Amino acid sequence: MSIKAINVRNQFRGKVKEIIDGPVVSEVDIETPAGIVTSVITSRSVRDLGLAPGVEVVALVKATEVSIAKL
Amino acid sequence: MSIKAINVRNQFRGKVKEIIDGPVVSEVDIETPAGIVTSVITSRSVRDLGLAPGVEVVALVKATEVSIAKL
Amino acid sequence: MSIKAINVRNQFRGKVKEIIDGPVVSEVDIETPAGIVTSVITSRSVRDLGLAPGVEVVALVKATEVSIAKL
Amino acid sequence: MSIKAINVRNQFRGKVKEIIDGPVVSEVDIETPAGIVTSVITSRSVRDLGLAPGVEVVALVKATEVSIAKL
Amino acid sequence: MSIKAINVRNQFRGKVKEIIDGPVVSEVDIETPAGIVTSVITSRSVRDLGLAPGVEVVALVKATEVSIAKL
Amino acid sequence: MSIKAINVRNQFRGKVKEIIDGPVVSEVDIETPAGIVTSVITSRSVRDLGLAPGVEVVALVKATEVSIAKL
Repeated sequence: MSIKAINVRNQFRGKVKEIIDGPVVSEVDIETPAGIVTSVITSRSVRDLGLAPGVEVVALVKATEVSIAKL
Repeated sequence: MSIKAINVRNQFRGKVKEIIDGPVVSEVDIETPAGIVTSVITSRSVRDLGLAPGVEVVALVKATEVSIAKL
Repeated sequence: MSIKAINVRNQFRGKVKEIIDGPVVSEVDIETPAGIVTSVITSRSVRDLGLAPGVEVVALVKATEVSIAKL
Repeated sequence: MSIKAINVRNQFRGKVKEIIDGPVVSEVDIETPAGIVTSVITSRSVRDLGLAPGVEVVALVKATEVSIAKL
Repeated sequence: MSIKAINVRNQFRGKVKEIIDGPVVSEVDIETPAGIVTSVITSRSVRDLGLAPGVEVVALVKATEVSIAKL
Repeated sequence: MSIKAINVRNQFRGKVKEIIDGPVVSEVDIETPAGIVTSVITSRSVRDLGLAPGVEVVALVKATEVSIAKL
């Protein structure tokens, strides 16, 4: 299934830098112009998407999941 | 209360660009080196934090909230 | 930007049935074979995606967001 | 504690099909009329709820966690 | 539908203290022994559940949604 | 980076009671006046924050992540 557009406003393009595998979920670190973006997804999805270091991806974050802090 | 460190791995520093006010939640758009990051938080928090265009903030996203797509 | 694949395991195809507009977020009710799926997204995204009753969409839910109850 | 009603609008009844155990979190795949719904919850909750293949459950998703894509 | 048990590990019993109504979502403030717990849910759910000041409720939070900070 | 304030309305101070380590994510149980609060965060964050039984922390929950049930 190919998706033309998604409501998720926050999208960060980058390349997979490192994957820490676990039996259920894996950590995927993505190198983006904004720095490293870290994602935890199911290990099944890592395999289904064929993720590996160097693969180009987009990290997506729903606006309701973004918190704001003041320094 | 001042926080020294937080487990949230994804942190994007930037400046508030625009706020769309609502009666319960507001949209806060933050200008970061990674582009615009959009957040939806309670309008009470917008007031409590004194958010307004130009204010420096950090957008925070928990790793479990980040999805990954392939282009 | 066209997406070929996404890690989000839970995908429900359907048609938009009703939209309740708000100043910041909107409720979008989607008619799927699984029944009505309700989503709250930013009103900007509703406009950007051109959502309206009858439009075909896919509702996406990250596995870490699914809770389980026993009856 | 018995719950009479919950605000979570999206509820999918089904039967546990498969559980992938992990030391901290487990993946629970639920067979529903809408297809397989995948959930990641703590392995403690899997034990506390007595989840196993064949057990009847309800998958619950908060409306703010549902994203929308266009095909 | 009555629920016997739910995987959500974090449960805070309390009484609704205040509701801020919005066209799509509402803020519900709950008085608990742990202090005020604030929730944002759809305004439809507020009506469906018959929420009003004084009503006894349980606030539920999935463990994957809890962040940790050091002071 | 020190944070002066955060939009997250729900904050529960307590002490780490127990940590269940996993290869990717860990469960952190926090003893608070409201009872045990359970959090699942990346194992990297557990190490980065120096979490261990007895350490004082604050559990943070975004209002949009709180569900409400009636007993």
